[in-house]
Amino acid sequence: MVERKEISRSVLKRLPGYLAYLKNLPEDAPAHISATALATALGMGEVQVRKDLALVSDGGRPKIGYLRTALVEDIEQFLGYDNTTDAIIVGAGKLGCALLGYEGFAEYGLNIVAAFDRTPHEDPSGKQVYPMEKMQSFCKRNKILMGIITVPASVAQNVADMMIECGIKAIWNFAPVHLDAPDNILIQNQNMATNLAVLSMHLQAQMKPKKD
Amino acid sequence: MVERKEISRSVLKRLPGYLAYLKNLPEDAPAHISATALATALGMGEVQVRKDLALVSDGGRPKIGYLRTALVEDIEQFLGYDNTTDAIIVGAGKLGCALLGYEGFAEYGLNIVAAFDRTPHEDPSGKQVYPMEKMQSFCKRNKILMGIITVPASVAQNVADMMIECGIKAIWNFAPVHLDAPDNILIQNQNMATNLAVLSMHLQAQMKPKKD
Repeated sequence: MVERKEISRSVLKRLPGYLAYLKNLPEDAPAHISATALATALGMGEVQVRKDLALVSDGGRPKIGYLRTALVEDIEQFLGYDNTTDAIIVGAGKLGCALLGYEGFAEYGLNIVAAFDRTPHEDPSGKQVYPMEKMQSFCKRNKILMGIITVPASVAQNVADMMIECGIKAIWNFAPVHLDAPDNILIQNQNMATNLAVLSMHLQAQMKPKKD
Repeated sequence: MVERKEISRSVLKRLPGYLAYLKNLPEDAPAHISATALATALGMGEVQVRKDLALVSDGGRPKIGYLRTALVEDIEQFLGYDNTTDAIIVGAGKLGCALLGYEGFAEYGLNIVAAFDRTPHEDPSGKQVYPMEKMQSFCKRNKILMGIITVPASVAQNVADMMIECGIKAIWNFAPVHLDAPDNILIQNQNMATNLAVLSMHLQAQMKPKKD
């Protein structure tokens, strides 16, 4: 992998798309792929794809392109998918339990090791949901750096503050509310509500009889 | 509600935040709230909040503000949360089943009425997962306009094409891949993979020993 440079958010958004395409090519596809071929397949600009790939891999060769398997490894390494990150989840309601039971995160290097809730119980997935009081000692003992918030909006800030107190540096927030945090903490909002709102607005606009 | 104007994506992103805050105020909070008070509570600019609220409600009165209950209704109506949208889901793997079993969507006016998969089975939630062949007749009979894609990236475009064929106008895509669609179809990507990548990158940067 090339030395890590500052990378823009928009590049980060495109990398999982390349990865998905490359990983889903049939077994018997050619061993090499060029930036041009990738750009064509994904309907993207060739220059952009070429630049993006050069950022994450130095394996591109003129007229031949990248060895597919090496490119997949380089992108995964770049995105941190090969380093497993242990995370905890706070809020074991419907959404929290859904995420807790979702095994697809392993592919992205995410391992949800424990869940915490006001009311401890056993999750249908068989994982134990612990009481909130155990969160701090668990996080410190296991050096947890990532937290996932799936509590109601009204208590999300409170939970974020507790996570930061526990040493967590990156928060994946599913609560539909803005969270404040110090500069060294990254809050990433998973705007389910926003996306749903955009979809609903589109349908409303489609359904509305045209006026003149 | 005021007459619907063209509304920017950034306004749409902020509305669910206002709504979450308003709905989570205690029962005995004052009946009225001003744009100023809302801006302060959420750490946002007063002018922006004032403009956003004026877009969705004409109930604001000088020095008094908005009646909270009316403002909640106006925002919900604006976001389409009061019109229930029926949606189908294609791909009943771990993530699809998680969404199928998640009851929190009702709050946003989303009702997932059926799921389809290559291999039909009964979902743990008790809902039936139907074979793909039944999708078209189901969608046409029930006038389904929204589809949720939770299949692997390799088959997502194929599923999107089928959905559009079935009359679906808005697609919520959980597959980590770009989808092509005609202009009148809205594709909304739920970038779980991208968000995870951003979080991982942040943690890697935090962990990396400083160089000079």
